[in-house]
Amino acid sequence: MAMVCISDFEAYAKKYLPKIAWDYFAAGADDCTTRDENILAYKRIRFRPRMLRDVSVVDVRTKILGSEISFPVGIAPTGFHQLAWPDGEKSTARAARAMNTCYIASTYSTCTLEEISAAAPGGLRWFQLYIHRNRAASQQLVQRAEALGFQGLVLTADLPYTGKRRDDIRNGFRLPPHMKVKNLERAFEVCKMSLLDPSVTWNDIYWLQSLTRLPIIIKGILTREDAELAVRHGVRGIIVSNHGGRQLDEGPATIDALVEVVEAVRGRVEVYVDGGIRKGSDVLKALALGAKCVFIGRPALWGLAYKGEEGLQDVLRILQDEFRLSMALAGCASVSEIGQHLVQFSKL
Amino acid sequence: MAMVCISDFEAYAKKYLPKIAWDYFAAGADDCTTRDENILAYKRIRFRPRMLRDVSVVDVRTKILGSEISFPVGIAPTGFHQLAWPDGEKSTARAARAMNTCYIASTYSTCTLEEISAAAPGGLRWFQLYIHRNRAASQQLVQRAEALGFQGLVLTADLPYTGKRRDDIRNGFRLPPHMKVKNLERAFEVCKMSLLDPSVTWNDIYWLQSLTRLPIIIKGILTREDAELAVRHGVRGIIVSNHGGRQLDEGPATIDALVEVVEAVRGRVEVYVDGGIRKGSDVLKALALGAKCVFIGRPALWGLAYKGEEGLQDVLRILQDEFRLSMALAGCASVSEIGQHLVQFSKL
Amino acid sequence: MAMVCISDFEAYAKKYLPKIAWDYFAAGADDCTTRDENILAYKRIRFRPRMLRDVSVVDVRTKILGSEISFPVGIAPTGFHQLAWPDGEKSTARAARAMNTCYIASTYSTCTLEEISAAAPGGLRWFQLYIHRNRAASQQLVQRAEALGFQGLVLTADLPYTGKRRDDIRNGFRLPPHMKVKNLERAFEVCKMSLLDPSVTWNDIYWLQSLTRLPIIIKGILTREDAELAVRHGVRGIIVSNHGGRQLDEGPATIDALVEVVEAVRGRVEVYVDGGIRKGSDVLKALALGAKCVFIGRPALWGLAYKGEEGLQDVLRILQDEFRLSMALAGCASVSEIGQHLVQFSKL
Amino acid sequence: MAMVCISDFEAYAKKYLPKIAWDYFAAGADDCTTRDENILAYKRIRFRPRMLRDVSVVDVRTKILGSEISFPVGIAPTGFHQLAWPDGEKSTARAARAMNTCYIASTYSTCTLEEISAAAPGGLRWFQLYIHRNRAASQQLVQRAEALGFQGLVLTADLPYTGKRRDDIRNGFRLPPHMKVKNLERAFEVCKMSLLDPSVTWNDIYWLQSLTRLPIIIKGILTREDAELAVRHGVRGIIVSNHGGRQLDEGPATIDALVEVVEAVRGRVEVYVDGGIRKGSDVLKALALGAKCVFIGRPALWGLAYKGEEGLQDVLRILQDEFRLSMALAGCASVSEIGQHLVQFSKL
Repeated sequence: MAMVCISDFEAYAKKYLPKIAWDYFAAGADDCTTRDENILAYKRIRFRPRMLRDVSVVDVRTKILGSEISFPVGIAPTGFHQLAWPDGEKSTARAARAMNTCYIASTYSTCTLEEISAAAPGGLRWFQLYIHRNRAASQQLVQRAEALGFQGLVLTADLPYTGKRRDDIRNGFRLPPHMKVKNLERAFEVCKMSLLDPSVTWNDIYWLQSLTRLPIIIKGILTREDAELAVRHGVRGIIVSNHGGRQLDEGPATIDALVEVVEAVRGRVEVYVDGGIRKGSDVLKALALGAKCVFIGRPALWGLAYKGEEGLQDVLRILQDEFRLSMALAGCASVSEIGQHLVQFSKL
Repeated sequence: MAMVCISDFEAYAKKYLPKIAWDYFAAGADDCTTRDENILAYKRIRFRPRMLRDVSVVDVRTKILGSEISFPVGIAPTGFHQLAWPDGEKSTARAARAMNTCYIASTYSTCTLEEISAAAPGGLRWFQLYIHRNRAASQQLVQRAEALGFQGLVLTADLPYTGKRRDDIRNGFRLPPHMKVKNLERAFEVCKMSLLDPSVTWNDIYWLQSLTRLPIIIKGILTREDAELAVRHGVRGIIVSNHGGRQLDEGPATIDALVEVVEAVRGRVEVYVDGGIRKGSDVLKALALGAKCVFIGRPALWGLAYKGEEGLQDVLRILQDEFRLSMALAGCASVSEIGQHLVQFSKL
Repeated sequence: MAMVCISDFEAYAKKYLPKIAWDYFAAGADDCTTRDENILAYKRIRFRPRMLRDVSVVDVRTKILGSEISFPVGIAPTGFHQLAWPDGEKSTARAARAMNTCYIASTYSTCTLEEISAAAPGGLRWFQLYIHRNRAASQQLVQRAEALGFQGLVLTADLPYTGKRRDDIRNGFRLPPHMKVKNLERAFEVCKMSLLDPSVTWNDIYWLQSLTRLPIIIKGILTREDAELAVRHGVRGIIVSNHGGRQLDEGPATIDALVEVVEAVRGRVEVYVDGGIRKGSDVLKALALGAKCVFIGRPALWGLAYKGEEGLQDVLRILQDEFRLSMALAGCASVSEIGQHLVQFSKL
Repeated sequence: MAMVCISDFEAYAKKYLPKIAWDYFAAGADDCTTRDENILAYKRIRFRPRMLRDVSVVDVRTKILGSEISFPVGIAPTGFHQLAWPDGEKSTARAARAMNTCYIASTYSTCTLEEISAAAPGGLRWFQLYIHRNRAASQQLVQRAEALGFQGLVLTADLPYTGKRRDDIRNGFRLPPHMKVKNLERAFEVCKMSLLDPSVTWNDIYWLQSLTRLPIIIKGILTREDAELAVRHGVRGIIVSNHGGRQLDEGPATIDALVEVVEAVRGRVEVYVDGGIRKGSDVLKALALGAKCVFIGRPALWGLAYKGEEGLQDVLRILQDEFRLSMALAGCASVSEIGQHLVQFSKL
């Protein structure tokens, strides 16, 4: 089976992963409307490609928070990589480093932050944080991550409680006994996320800032009002995200929300987006609409499921090649030439 | 079979109810366009969720016409509950009381108002009225309801004649001989609703007001013009309803009509809505667009069909849990924080 | 099999008519887009029903060009009724008279005008004309029709050549040898309509006016420009029609074109519409948008195919009942109360 | 099997061509969205047909760059005609001449320009050029074409690199060994188009003008900005094209882009369009929106696959007949009467 495009990896993962793992990764909240809208919304955006511009060299490199990455696609934080591949997040870290891009490691990794760091020394990594009721535990995690050389702290804002994912409930999803959420001190029961603190507010950003010198990126913003609040509270970046459609169903597709957030932010901080990226041209659309970089969630897991580190590199390489080709065919020789003039929203 | 969401109850009822009963409950007028639009219209509304608001406590209680209910979902008036469960409306009354919400008992109940009252003393109940050609009979019903402690009188305005429900005609639908429309004096033949008075006009509201001190709620309003008339004639509440799509096909979806009615009413009376509610997030959308409370019709019948009183409680509990979770994920800690800023209409 | 709605007659006709006849009646031009759009366009119109208006008596009668009809649905001109039922147009004429409505007999009838008149003396009938290259033949037809008591002359304007109906070409459609286009002097070969004169222009309206005192109705108008020309040339009525989608594919649905034509005409002449009427509520929509009356084509043929005169009466009676019920449920007690406030175009 | 419309030829080709050839011709980039949109976009355009205009004679002739053609449909440049029919481009040239229309021969023909010329002396032909890294080779091709009597030079602007056509990658598409890209000196490997020069810019138009007196037509323009640049650089015509959806996926449908380009060009040069033409009425729509002529790609190949020169003539004749009929039914007696008033964009 030739792996030509990202859907090939999806088909592979659906075929070879245990059903309970596939369902967990695929799950969306309620009717999965938002999960699917994330993809459909990209299809409603049309390119306005420009011709006869010298594209003999197409430079796809960019920078996020000052760090160069080989192209504007990073790895979004997702949990439980060992469900996809035995080496779990260690493989993810190695693939991200090999491709010279950014990997956001999840609190709910099945490897420790120390194992992740050791697996791919020198790689660009951010650490994703849920704030727990036990604030001391969260503080400890932040400080471990900083000490290990993680270069950004990503606060997930959209999970005061876990969304209602029907298949997980039907399956009675929980981690197999030999896997652990190792970053948390005691064994952690998935689907009973009672450890999370639903009382977190914007003021807790100040508390995080008091704990660390790492730049804080907030993940899960979907409105101009919250984007403004994020900037005012001193975050350095915003990831426009709906948690892959796994939290509140029937919110906006992220690429649609991106437009609103970018407009509100007016360049004061970097804006990223995740959700629904399946082709290199999706990356081009996101950048045209103002994202500095995109992050992939499920496609990275499919890559892992295919061949671990190597499979994830395949996924990233395909997206990179497609992105480069899309840029060339749209008439862009470098990322700085990408702008809103390249796209229009279809009326359909 | 795990009952995870309301569609699970629908699937159960479709499988286990006699076809003639399922068809009767499922029926829509003509092509069933409006019946289905009631559901689809909710899907075209997108949330604008807000993050990092303290949602450690989410209070879903509200009040309708001064009475507190545990959450803003009541039981809409539907006929013939014995078709769904042997104890019929007695079970409905018990489940509504157990969940501390409002039950609107139909004129076309298969239990008497007295039986309903006795089954769940102290429950919050309104009585739904069709005005019959025999006005004395209608007067008697109103006065019986008031004497039994019903706290509101719901006048159904959209049924001067019964809509054309093709399946009922094909099936030759009629109640089985052992069931009776007990509230009406003599045996009543369904599908030959010739007892109803199609000459009713707005002036009959005054007549009703002369019969009772109960607040009058009008059900079946879909336009701003009629909403204005309703307010001027002194009703205390409006239920935006198209009778579950069973009357005039190809009228508006109720959630769409709600916007027009709420705008016309300008807070002078309470506005409610029924039709198409299938998830807790639908309730949140309706409240965001100005409804004080929603009422469920078919989902209540599916709950009864599943396990009588207990099944209906399951349905209500699922909607309550989903509503609470949706509020939390949208950033609302109490019903008073829900507002129009939470939603937008999708362009699709 | 119960005949509950018009689609039941369609299903019957599809099952029992010879394929070549079914295909001929069902045919649309090219991809059949317009044929199908005629129906879909009705579905995009939403009612705004009004409540609590006295609808104890609903009067569905109306007048067209001064003649009273029992309800605003007439029989559009279609050819070759013997393909549907042995007695052909004689049965059609009888059914129309029995239901006290207007029947527009086609030039391409398989009975003579004399046979049609004799079958149902006193019925309200108009005669539909194609202008032939042999003008004398056309003149003779007009004068025969006038002499036989036809009360209107309908000039079809949209058939300078026959549209491309793929199935008819594949089937090699032609009338069976025992059927004749009897109104034309010599045997007439269908699908080779070379007898028609494609050089007809607006000035030929004046020529027709010189031949007859019958009011002239023009059929096939779809634009405001042509509506204006029609009024200026002294026609008495306009039938908005796209020939059932059998001529130029991908023109407008007739109910959409009706709005444009009604606006242009500003009440100076009567406007009618055909195409896509399948339910009584479609009739209500057409009247709300300004049509004085609608005409049905294929549904009449399905009625004939079912049981001849009796079947067509069934079709008309169902439409009449549905129309009356729709009026009542929308709050209209007479045709004069129907207006544009009753409908709105869905945004979808 | 009767060949009634263009889809019949498509079905034939799909059935009888080797899969690898069918896939190559059918291929679109990525998800094939733009390939399919080219067709769907025509369906969203509605005619506004006019009646009672003398259409006894319908003249479908037109001129492109001063040369008369029998109707406004030419043959777009596509590669490798021997994949469809043994005689390849020689058959194409003969059919185009027989039908008195324009054939744009591709650089990637499987016959030489000399063979094409000899096959149909005196036919109206343009030559399509890709600029290669080896500029001398390109210069030689241009000069050979001019010497052989080609009357226009079509520069393809949208292929700095080949689009990602998944099926071709899966199939490992390459020309069978007995076919050659004969116009290029040494054997040429398809799918490794490294011979193309991705550094071409607008200035290279001046270079081409210095090589030849042939009028230059640019193919692949989709935006007003590039249309303006094309005019300023002295091209004589613009072909609005997205390469049949084979290059950048999710660009605009060509008929949609045509509107923007025609508006920008304001009549200064001729504008043509290709992509998605499947019916004579599509041609009428394109002309109504400002195209001087359309070009067909895949339909020509299907005609070749059916019966070579004769099959392609069948395709052209069907389009011509349909175009003539559409003109008549829309009320146009000559190409000069076609204008924007004939069409409107559907809101759906």
